[in-house]
Amino acid sequence: MGILDKVNYPQDLKKLTSDQLVNLCGEIRELILKTVLEHGGHLSSNLGVVEAVVALHYVFNAPKDKIIFDVGHQCYAHKILTGRKNAVSTLRENDGLSGFPKIQESEYDVMNTGHASTSLSVACGLARASAGGEQIISFIGDGAMTGGLAYEALGDIACMKEKQIIVLNDNEMSISKNVGLISSYLERLRRERVARPFSLFDLKYIGVVDGHDIKALIRAFNKAKKSEESVIVHIMTKKGKGYEEAERDPEKYHGYSISTQKNPTFSQIAGEEISKLAEKDKDVFAITAAMASGTGLDIFEKRFPERFVDVGIAEAHALCMSAGLALGGKKPYFAVYSTFLQRAYDQLVHDVCLNSLPVTLCVDRCGIVAGDGETHQGVFDISFMRALPNLCVFAPKDGEELRAALDWSLNYDKPLAIRYPKAEDGNKYSVHTPIEEGAWEYIEKSDSDNVLLATGAICVANAVKIAELLKEKGINIDVVNARFIKPMDTTVLDAISSKRIFTLEDGVRTGGFGEGVITYFAEKGVSADVTIFAFEEKPYPQGSVDYVLKKTATDPVSLSDKIYAKVKA
Amino acid sequence: MGILDKVNYPQDLKKLTSDQLVNLCGEIRELILKTVLEHGGHLSSNLGVVEAVVALHYVFNAPKDKIIFDVGHQCYAHKILTGRKNAVSTLRENDGLSGFPKIQESEYDVMNTGHASTSLSVACGLARASAGGEQIISFIGDGAMTGGLAYEALGDIACMKEKQIIVLNDNEMSISKNVGLISSYLERLRRERVARPFSLFDLKYIGVVDGHDIKALIRAFNKAKKSEESVIVHIMTKKGKGYEEAERDPEKYHGYSISTQKNPTFSQIAGEEISKLAEKDKDVFAITAAMASGTGLDIFEKRFPERFVDVGIAEAHALCMSAGLALGGKKPYFAVYSTFLQRAYDQLVHDVCLNSLPVTLCVDRCGIVAGDGETHQGVFDISFMRALPNLCVFAPKDGEELRAALDWSLNYDKPLAIRYPKAEDGNKYSVHTPIEEGAWEYIEKSDSDNVLLATGAICVANAVKIAELLKEKGINIDVVNARFIKPMDTTVLDAISSKRIFTLEDGVRTGGFGEGVITYFAEKGVSADVTIFAFEEKPYPQGSVDYVLKKTATDPVSLSDKIYAKVKA
Repeated sequence: MGILDKVNYPQDLKKLTSDQLVNLCGEIRELILKTVLEHGGHLSSNLGVVEAVVALHYVFNAPKDKIIFDVGHQCYAHKILTGRKNAVSTLRENDGLSGFPKIQESEYDVMNTGHASTSLSVACGLARASAGGEQIISFIGDGAMTGGLAYEALGDIACMKEKQIIVLNDNEMSISKNVGLISSYLERLRRERVARPFSLFDLKYIGVVDGHDIKALIRAFNKAKKSEESVIVHIMTKKGKGYEEAERDPEKYHGYSISTQKNPTFSQIAGEEISKLAEKDKDVFAITAAMASGTGLDIFEKRFPERFVDVGIAEAHALCMSAGLALGGKKPYFAVYSTFLQRAYDQLVHDVCLNSLPVTLCVDRCGIVAGDGETHQGVFDISFMRALPNLCVFAPKDGEELRAALDWSLNYDKPLAIRYPKAEDGNKYSVHTPIEEGAWEYIEKSDSDNVLLATGAICVANAVKIAELLKEKGINIDVVNARFIKPMDTTVLDAISSKRIFTLEDGVRTGGFGEGVITYFAEKGVSADVTIFAFEEKPYPQGSVDYVLKKTATDPVSLSDKIYAKVKA
Repeated sequence: MGILDKVNYPQDLKKLTSDQLVNLCGEIRELILKTVLEHGGHLSSNLGVVEAVVALHYVFNAPKDKIIFDVGHQCYAHKILTGRKNAVSTLRENDGLSGFPKIQESEYDVMNTGHASTSLSVACGLARASAGGEQIISFIGDGAMTGGLAYEALGDIACMKEKQIIVLNDNEMSISKNVGLISSYLERLRRERVARPFSLFDLKYIGVVDGHDIKALIRAFNKAKKSEESVIVHIMTKKGKGYEEAERDPEKYHGYSISTQKNPTFSQIAGEEISKLAEKDKDVFAITAAMASGTGLDIFEKRFPERFVDVGIAEAHALCMSAGLALGGKKPYFAVYSTFLQRAYDQLVHDVCLNSLPVTLCVDRCGIVAGDGETHQGVFDISFMRALPNLCVFAPKDGEELRAALDWSLNYDKPLAIRYPKAEDGNKYSVHTPIEEGAWEYIEKSDSDNVLLATGAICVANAVKIAELLKEKGINIDVVNARFIKPMDTTVLDAISSKRIFTLEDGVRTGGFGEGVITYFAEKGVSADVTIFAFEEKPYPQGSVDYVLKKTATDPVSLSDKIYAKVKA
């Protein structure tokens, strides 16, 4: 029987000797490793912080004391220590534990998070709100420190009197190799290996602390606890600690998934195709914000390192810098996840769209994004992009069309967004119409009275399934690949205005594609019969695409039933 | 005859002696002062940078060399020196010169800008795009350095090999007194007054240079020009230099306008009312991002300094910190201009809305914002806010309703945005229905077959005018104050579904209020007759509200004609 068997909540830790704590860390690490290798999940970051999290819960008194995990994907040890160890096998599964802090799961989780660099700002708010008595602790990686938001918060912390503790988890990485100011600053600190004032932030400084030495961590956290003023505790950890393969290649094991891959993903196709463009055209640049492998740009990086830019976790700069590249006559391709593009929204409006600069956004992880859950669901991008001047928004039905769109983009002279899901390119279509701005294509056409306008790879595939299901019931429905979300194909729209129209998209209804279709007809004074299939504007939980679609009754079976009912009404 | 008479373009400067340059600066300063005192505009910042801009154009060779003015409102001397001196009296006027750089005006303007902290990122892109030969110079204030975007760019600059020059215009202020990290760092540099490596950024450093000593500036810029590596030139300037009143109170003269004010502005009313709430409720906090007086929060600051937070130009942190305050049980009111809220979009999605935290956004400068032009037009917020989960969006018809909404917000337990224009509260209404979530009110009701749904102060006032104009022509139209943009009043909508409906908003059509109304009916399967009056999704130029509305045919006369035509059709 192990020590972990007796530990369910932080108070159980406090009775343990330091030797027992060391053993406990080993057991936690084993549990995480077993869980992630069996089920997938964030591995490297979670293995790296076991001792630090144990020491935090040993020294501080959560939930009274607030421990805020930046981003949050390194929370597994925390979840194990706060009443959830028996559920860790459900992490990131349908209906399972979230892979991120979730206040609905536990009072030990301070806030629902998933994006980087927010913890210090939240801590500033909590510290100002506090009547005193509790400790406010942010646990933030050096990677997240690259984000401008963290810097803005540090500026505030330097000015405010309320105390907070910043645990800087320095593993010399974000997801990819780290870059940026803090990074080079930390590099110097590490080299010198002496405690000295953290002059960059004008903050009291404790460090460098070995992040795998439980005694040293406890000493450092106790010192921070006693401090009257805000303090930064600089700990050094090793990503993937305790699992040799992950230590060697932590990026590979950042998000570990049980591979069942049969076809290339859209990300891989984008990476390959942009590389091909770069071969043809010396002006092509590829830009990422710390997501080289996630976005498939690692392919580009290897082949064209001099035209590849990884700015670290700094989406706003990535996009604004891309605007500068375009202004200088280059052809920048910024590959970014849908929900992280939200972090560069003003740069999209102010720098790219108002200036009408030819920047191409490869918007990855659109629609439902399986295990990561609500903070990663790419369901807002259609709405926030449709409203912007000069921006063309395209969603390919498959990998071949993604390639074609990227090829087409090379001579497109305005801002362009190409959105695609986190998915394999598994559907083959016989139709492949050349790309022309605003032109849709029929996937199935029988001059039926019913038309389904679907946009994007997931929805077009589902539309074809819906058509098959309806055919079995004796109903024909034409399927249109509405690949240009903006501008729309008004020739097709005008031709179908008297038909029963259904729209299908994997974003929120409000401000979405369907609203655009309805408005088009209304504006023309045409009384069209349009039914929108889209997501309600609410947070969407984690789960596989199929699972979430079923749960929200937007899966092919549910939708074909709805269409059937409408047609037969 | 002065020296300025002989200077039209930068090349004319190069022949002048340093004494002549000094005199030229005096003449430019006089021209700026005269222009702004007569016509309004940004005064303090423009008076402060005259010598620096003259020296830049003396040393560098624009337009080949790229001089990027951060934000851009300090570009008046630059415009005077680049072929536009005879047009300065039209600055910020309808159809006049822009108060910001505008590539449509001149090849000497690098990019259209208006928001802070973007110059370094754009410079990174231009430097990477450059084949060599030209100099890339950013001219950025210490205030803009507070923004996280500038920090993200500095991280990139520290890593990249391409050279650029950063002129740090240090006037110890943003618009209000400056705050933050860089600020305290600069404070130390200033105290020491010695050239030393700018260790914070690991950049070659030239400074401190007296920003009003033309010879010293020329020496420093020449040194920077010759440098092989990126370099920061730290100059000290005095905001309002040469105009005693502006030197004494630069914030007052930041944006100078010829005052013809008769009524309190919506900003002032918001500031007063939030102060009243703070009196009643000890949990009320007010937050600004360097816009205390612009948003009316200077009133709050004076009365409740301990519950007032100015984070500097750092909107993302302001909102994320507000989320932390709400999480800690406080009631944060973040007052922010519509287009600057774009800079905190992910914090709105990820931190506030997905967590459903009761943060109240006072969204100022919504709709058309007169002289500032396209980068400041608050025409996207309805679209980008409507799509977000848990967010209630309210637009009061007048100051009294703004007060009522703020009062109501005190016990509202979810995210709330209250949007209002840059305008005086000049319209009085006899109707004032108590606020209830989602409830609209009739301003005029005669059970006409025509209904006009108007949202926000400008549009409701115009709706009343439209109704009057139509009445003169014998047509009645009911006017509804659609104050809740979200959720909408479905009772009213259901009651009017068979009427001729017109919607009026001061935002872009796409994803806007009108689309919401049309979609509501379409989703119910009700064939309603709805006409949307909104802005096309394109950049809107500078000009008074009346001017822009007329130009876009959305003024009361044009709209009443359109409604008349539709009713009589």
